[in-house]
Amino acid sequence: MSILGKDLFDVDTLTQDDVVSIFEMAKKFKENGFTKKWSSLKGKTICTLFFESSTRTRISFEIAAKRLGSDVVNFTASTSSLNKGESFKDTVKTLDAMGIDLYVVRHSEPGSPMMLKKYTKSLVINAGDGIRAHPTQAILDAYTMWEKFGKVEGLKVTIVGDILHSRVARSNAKLLKKLGADVTLAGPATLMPSNVENYGVKVSCDVKRAVSNSDIVMGLRMQLERQNMSFFSSLDEYNEFYGITPEIMEFAKPNSIFMHPGPMNRGVEVVESISDSDASVVEEQVTNGVFVRMALLNQMLGGGVE
Amino acid sequence: MSILGKDLFDVDTLTQDDVVSIFEMAKKFKENGFTKKWSSLKGKTICTLFFESSTRTRISFEIAAKRLGSDVVNFTASTSSLNKGESFKDTVKTLDAMGIDLYVVRHSEPGSPMMLKKYTKSLVINAGDGIRAHPTQAILDAYTMWEKFGKVEGLKVTIVGDILHSRVARSNAKLLKKLGADVTLAGPATLMPSNVENYGVKVSCDVKRAVSNSDIVMGLRMQLERQNMSFFSSLDEYNEFYGITPEIMEFAKPNSIFMHPGPMNRGVEVVESISDSDASVVEEQVTNGVFVRMALLNQMLGGGVE
Amino acid sequence: MSILGKDLFDVDTLTQDDVVSIFEMAKKFKENGFTKKWSSLKGKTICTLFFESSTRTRISFEIAAKRLGSDVVNFTASTSSLNKGESFKDTVKTLDAMGIDLYVVRHSEPGSPMMLKKYTKSLVINAGDGIRAHPTQAILDAYTMWEKFGKVEGLKVTIVGDILHSRVARSNAKLLKKLGADVTLAGPATLMPSNVENYGVKVSCDVKRAVSNSDIVMGLRMQLERQNMSFFSSLDEYNEFYGITPEIMEFAKPNSIFMHPGPMNRGVEVVESISDSDASVVEEQVTNGVFVRMALLNQMLGGGVE
Repeated sequence: MSILGKDLFDVDTLTQDDVVSIFEMAKKFKENGFTKKWSSLKGKTICTLFFESSTRTRISFEIAAKRLGSDVVNFTASTSSLNKGESFKDTVKTLDAMGIDLYVVRHSEPGSPMMLKKYTKSLVINAGDGIRAHPTQAILDAYTMWEKFGKVEGLKVTIVGDILHSRVARSNAKLLKKLGADVTLAGPATLMPSNVENYGVKVSCDVKRAVSNSDIVMGLRMQLERQNMSFFSSLDEYNEFYGITPEIMEFAKPNSIFMHPGPMNRGVEVVESISDSDASVVEEQVTNGVFVRMALLNQMLGGGVE
Repeated sequence: MSILGKDLFDVDTLTQDDVVSIFEMAKKFKENGFTKKWSSLKGKTICTLFFESSTRTRISFEIAAKRLGSDVVNFTASTSSLNKGESFKDTVKTLDAMGIDLYVVRHSEPGSPMMLKKYTKSLVINAGDGIRAHPTQAILDAYTMWEKFGKVEGLKVTIVGDILHSRVARSNAKLLKKLGADVTLAGPATLMPSNVENYGVKVSCDVKRAVSNSDIVMGLRMQLERQNMSFFSSLDEYNEFYGITPEIMEFAKPNSIFMHPGPMNRGVEVVESISDSDASVVEEQVTNGVFVRMALLNQMLGGGVE
Repeated sequence: MSILGKDLFDVDTLTQDDVVSIFEMAKKFKENGFTKKWSSLKGKTICTLFFESSTRTRISFEIAAKRLGSDVVNFTASTSSLNKGESFKDTVKTLDAMGIDLYVVRHSEPGSPMMLKKYTKSLVINAGDGIRAHPTQAILDAYTMWEKFGKVEGLKVTIVGDILHSRVARSNAKLLKKLGADVTLAGPATLMPSNVENYGVKVSCDVKRAVSNSDIVMGLRMQLERQNMSFFSSLDEYNEFYGITPEIMEFAKPNSIFMHPGPMNRGVEVVESISDSDASVVEEQVTNGVFVRMALLNQMLGGGVE
């Protein structure tokens, strides 16, 4: 009934109680601020295992782990013996044998964290596996909503953009449904997954209608690097029909907020007058990311907090 | 009247008292040696943000920060989401939101540290911005002179080489003038900036005459990678006319010293019989760099030293 | 009569007593497990200086150093000012001047650790120099045998594979002879060094005969990236004649073990039914690598262990 000793591949395995417990601990960490050092994970070694480049996620985990007193080892594909033809299996078994307690893995291939788990007795956190899942992003997003609105249940959340290529949208939709939010996915039909009704969410290609009466409007990064085909005629056209603008935000509730997992393509999925407005909580999401990851690491590895 | 809570873009904002205070603290750190660990910056997170490769400067800051108990996060452009088209602005805002207390930034574009400052509430140290400024190098150079001669005021300092492309020369000239030294810039006329008289320094194209009676002769790295045009016919010719040799050093005072910010192009701006002689304090400069940066970080971030 | 204050270029300089002392300390560290943090090297700074990519060795040293409380600075060629034409000499002198206590160096050129030593007063550990030597691998391998069999003396060890390009084979052969083992090198004649009789070992091109009655069968990585010529017709053929298979292991003693320095080319020098069998101690070697390196660092740098 807790996440102690469990992996985090996606949000599916989390109970409502687990999430509340993570939120409460993240809140406590946040109240203590960034400069407070804890020693609850002293003696642990956390390995970031990133096969895709990422600023925010890797550094967020690194800062979170160090704040708790853990050692951190950064492994990136380009400087590793993968160059020498070492298999993923052997890399993991080798790191495992050196006493790594927990892996934070990002890889372009869906399911890679579960593949990694086949070779390790240590814990695994999925920090993004292709278009499949990004559970820590979903938890920090839900935490940000919980912090702003005092609850998640009953909130109307509209996620707008390239749903098809978005692990953020998938993990968010699942977690928000679990927490009782009313979720709508909006975007061009060509960028909507075929099995989207399985998520129990509403779907719309009319952004204005979808955003109507929303508490939260979440933009998604246009994942240009993951698209092999042309899904729309131009970025300008995309922005005109699906970009989040002041006109779109007018349809949302008066105190609604704008969220985005970052990094933002300004002028594509969102315009600056929204991304940099008072309604935007994009930076707050990043800040919360550190505290939520601290809570996750601490609970998974059984660190007490005095 | 102190550097607490201030940025360090260049030496202009430093008062004489600030510099003396930095010197005194650096001296204290040096007396305690490399193996003494302090905890004055425990709980702080310093981020090195290097968009140009550099061994000595990044590692010097990293060691300085760790000696004071700070956490250090290294961000380099090649492994960051700049690959994904993230703007400089978003990179900084993201790092900022994760609780970075101070950035150490190096970038090929002049003014980039001030640009960074537009997006952050945290402190910024310029670790070199194109040909514009390199204030920590100037401070450690002045410290080295202060340590060797007991004062900076009245010292005759001749800086020889590619002045045009040298941020080291610019920051050194300004700081040394502020501290009362007598500064001469010497080098080929094609490599002399047009506004050089603004610095209040002497200028000469005759190295022997310039070096006459100097206490300090400072060579500069020939910045071959920053030159788009041909400023002289060959490296051999450059060495013959402007390289620092035993013959040149003969013109300086008997107890004069040779300085260089490194890395040296041996056989170009200096010959080995000087760079590796007893007169050379090049390694002492590197050592002092760590202690001076410790003093800077400590004073900017308000770390007490018990 | 101890390794305190000495470099480790190869196993030649180690006495039997030195090795036993390292083994005993590694055993003590291992008994305390991975999560125990020591502070015996607090205030020290260890620099990994890797000019060849390597996962296991660099991270193994990094974890070992951090477990003992040392700071670690990672220097890799691609992100250093070697790009700016800085010489190896200046790189080392610069790092040295910043107070590095010990370098862990890997370089493709044989003798590079001794070259490095010419420029530094700090200690040097060779973490692999071309095909010449890899002493820490040999020590951890011998430790693994000592742990499994209670002694090294009298053990029959057969090292199979590409001896010519293997620094592991060279260092292992020397150390195991010193400790009284009975060592045989086996592999194709084209991959056998010409001076192999100098090692005081047996040599064989018949793997089955060589393995007969062995306590330990050690496979070697086929160093495809170090071979400029064709030494055998195909990898399949190599596997057929020199790959370690269940049929080969049948010739060894009943309780014999399989060792490999990793990373393994499965299907080339070893088949999976051996590399992943109960007889394989490959992961134990990696684990022991951390504890053996802790013992080495601690003894070389004079860290007491309370």
